[in-house]
Amino acid sequence: MHGAVQFNKTVMGLVAIQMAMDIETPTDGGTRIEAVMEAIRSRIAARSLVPGSRLPSIRSLAKSMSLSSSTVVEAYERLAAEGIIRSRPGSGFYVTAPAVPMSIADIGPRLDRQIDPLWVSRQSLEAADEILKPGCGWLPPSWMPDEAIRRALRTLSRGDMAALTNYETPLGNPRLRELLARRLGDYGVTASPGQFILTESGTQAVDLLCRFLLEPGDTVLIDDPCYFNFQALLRAHRVRMVGVPYLETGPDLARFEEVLKTETPRLYITNSGVHNPTGATLSPVVAHRLLMLAAEHGLTIIEDDIFADFEDVPAPRLAAYDGLDRVLSVGSFSKTLSASFRCGFIAARRDWIDSLCDLKIATSFSSGHLGAELVLAVLTDGRYRKHLQDLRVRLARARQETAERLGALGFRPAIVPRAGMFLWCELPEGQMADRLAQACLADGIILAPGNAFSLSQSANRFMRFNVAQSDDPRLFGSLQKAMAG
Amino acid sequence: MHGAVQFNKTVMGLVAIQMAMDIETPTDGGTRIEAVMEAIRSRIAARSLVPGSRLPSIRSLAKSMSLSSSTVVEAYERLAAEGIIRSRPGSGFYVTAPAVPMSIADIGPRLDRQIDPLWVSRQSLEAADEILKPGCGWLPPSWMPDEAIRRALRTLSRGDMAALTNYETPLGNPRLRELLARRLGDYGVTASPGQFILTESGTQAVDLLCRFLLEPGDTVLIDDPCYFNFQALLRAHRVRMVGVPYLETGPDLARFEEVLKTETPRLYITNSGVHNPTGATLSPVVAHRLLMLAAEHGLTIIEDDIFADFEDVPAPRLAAYDGLDRVLSVGSFSKTLSASFRCGFIAARRDWIDSLCDLKIATSFSSGHLGAELVLAVLTDGRYRKHLQDLRVRLARARQETAERLGALGFRPAIVPRAGMFLWCELPEGQMADRLAQACLADGIILAPGNAFSLSQSANRFMRFNVAQSDDPRLFGSLQKAMAG
Repeated sequence: MHGAVQFNKTVMGLVAIQMAMDIETPTDGGTRIEAVMEAIRSRIAARSLVPGSRLPSIRSLAKSMSLSSSTVVEAYERLAAEGIIRSRPGSGFYVTAPAVPMSIADIGPRLDRQIDPLWVSRQSLEAADEILKPGCGWLPPSWMPDEAIRRALRTLSRGDMAALTNYETPLGNPRLRELLARRLGDYGVTASPGQFILTESGTQAVDLLCRFLLEPGDTVLIDDPCYFNFQALLRAHRVRMVGVPYLETGPDLARFEEVLKTETPRLYITNSGVHNPTGATLSPVVAHRLLMLAAEHGLTIIEDDIFADFEDVPAPRLAAYDGLDRVLSVGSFSKTLSASFRCGFIAARRDWIDSLCDLKIATSFSSGHLGAELVLAVLTDGRYRKHLQDLRVRLARARQETAERLGALGFRPAIVPRAGMFLWCELPEGQMADRLAQACLADGIILAPGNAFSLSQSANRFMRFNVAQSDDPRLFGSLQKAMAG
Repeated sequence: MHGAVQFNKTVMGLVAIQMAMDIETPTDGGTRIEAVMEAIRSRIAARSLVPGSRLPSIRSLAKSMSLSSSTVVEAYERLAAEGIIRSRPGSGFYVTAPAVPMSIADIGPRLDRQIDPLWVSRQSLEAADEILKPGCGWLPPSWMPDEAIRRALRTLSRGDMAALTNYETPLGNPRLRELLARRLGDYGVTASPGQFILTESGTQAVDLLCRFLLEPGDTVLIDDPCYFNFQALLRAHRVRMVGVPYLETGPDLARFEEVLKTETPRLYITNSGVHNPTGATLSPVVAHRLLMLAAEHGLTIIEDDIFADFEDVPAPRLAAYDGLDRVLSVGSFSKTLSASFRCGFIAARRDWIDSLCDLKIATSFSSGHLGAELVLAVLTDGRYRKHLQDLRVRLARARQETAERLGALGFRPAIVPRAGMFLWCELPEGQMADRLAQACLADGIILAPGNAFSLSQSANRFMRFNVAQSDDPRLFGSLQKAMAG
């Protein structure tokens, strides 16, 4: 025991001297602290300080390195906060055991994964920075409202602690709900702020509504093709899905009616404004007829409207025609503001709000207080309106350019969208989307093959391109190579 | 038509002149912009600008007020961003229709609500600032790590746009998961960073696990009393609940075994470290025996460990004894860091991670990128460790003081907790918790009556007090009055 202590003291002395030699004398406190931290880290990495060994005392290290004790204290505190060292009261600081290393299975895109509704999400969300993601459903960070976001964070950093630490009120930020009520008014949807519930995201909003509306075994009508995550989500709800072809102005109404009669679905989930993946826009006539059919057959509808801010001229909204009677509207700010803040919302008839609110508390307790404050700050920043205008122009240009470059390879947009980031393209003769997607993935390019969107698996001759993520020449080179191979 | 235009021009001129007269000449751009905004707002409030009316042109207003055009442009942009005015391209700015007013039903605490598992949450989350919340389950903002949080926000505001706008990777921030792996190591739970999934909250983590583990109609074992939201959440999952009395060192094992034999529950949900609401601590012997029973009967366990950071000395963890085999561990940062950021996590056996990750994407697509970055920044700030130390001391003092003040009224803690913010108190002879809770609510005080936590509804002689929210003399005055009345 005495020998061990003696040995430790010697090691500590050596470490202190080594450190004093290695560390250049920095000029400010912050850099000095970091230098001490870095020195300890490199000793641990080099195994001159092994797990369990005691660090030099604060006083001895400060003295041997000609630093103030408070500098060493702060460095040790920060290393302890990182979990690299640990204090034992009255006995100093010790090196902790290293974390179990990350398994190789956790890293990189997975080539072996089947193309299912989660294929695009998993691959795109897991992708490293150097991977191209023309198949993903979001804009690059450089397209987002940089200055307004940074300003919002700075403002919040000086703001009230309650907003920074408290749970959100059950329905969510009242000022943001007021603003949302005004914004939905622009699409002709009349709703009071009390008819809105804020959620963590558009997906969580749809999920909450599915919990509210569905029982396991129910039948749900979806578009074919539709946003792949609707299928993934509905699987999690253990319901049966029936698909109806989506055409240039909305779902195929003859087929829609037939499904209502024969399958009695309880719910229909769709995007009307800018349809995902096709980029189609609902026509007023289809909206009217669809709602007549819904009324006749007691169908409830979730209208996922998360691409609303991409539109120059708002397309018809089922929620507006219907007056939020049997239609529930869902939105979020992930596509044009930030997917990092997590803020979505539901607009619903008033008599459903209270039960939805209970369900929200039961399953997530609260939505993001900070996220809602940040979204509100950006939305009420004069720059955001300008950002949207620029974004629409930039997207229109990118749609044009991407269509031309894909056209040169023989890809043909099935619909010319009025707005948004997607081009739903038919492949050149003889090409299959799953094969192209797998081939390009090997080149570090994540595509969105048609069948990821298709319940009937009838879209293997289609692919969705995100025009904001399709400007790298490697994409077109890889596609060409894959088509030839 | 010509007449209307003429009239509008006159109104516009008048408004411009009125504004010019009202607005004092401020000295900086920001204040000038706000002054223009405020002038427009007050005209709208006074109905001198009614919905639909056109605002003065930018040029004319700038000229009449001796301001630069850019000041007026910025003011109009911001008002448009707030939704109060709207631009019509080529035609200027117009006053929008006012939002539908908030209904009175949306405001204030609800006296008529039955005491059910959602009672405390709804009342506490909806409470205005002046309401006392000794029944709630969180600390006041002034107890949170103020400076570390503000510093984290400032740092992020200068950081990479990807963190501020992108979706999070599927499992969540790798550096935070590494840190969590180290932290759980402190409780003896060995898990690699790849065994962690970040979620929006502890509640969302439990919910995700319930989706993964349960089918409608399954039986789930819970503590009686237990955290009320477990009951609300399990109701949403359409499962059957069976309660087992929770004693000073864990669940009543004789009853636990009996339930395993007769009811074959699939899952048990509990908190071991600091039990909610009782403040009890699991003993090593009970942990061992409970896990033996679980193994024998094929029981899976969710250990909700969100109060971990309150402990000075970690209590036994089921996850540690079991080695994350049949136990899943859940945590969050809502209690000691911020409930506003939304960041929780699951630690699970490796072969369950991939399916849990798919389910996370399907039901919420992503967890909070910003929230995780902020939590990481605060956790690795040297001040956080000091914050926790101070917090524990402050809570110990508050537990002592609150116990004394409640003791003077005849309330007796059923258990003297080692850590945390809760005191589970037996009421004075003859008093009933539901009646006291309703009476105090009328005084603007939200309590946590025992039956909100009790599946068997056998806890009406108990009440949970949050010692960090129980320092206002009004609480004790109101209790005394209610008990006498």
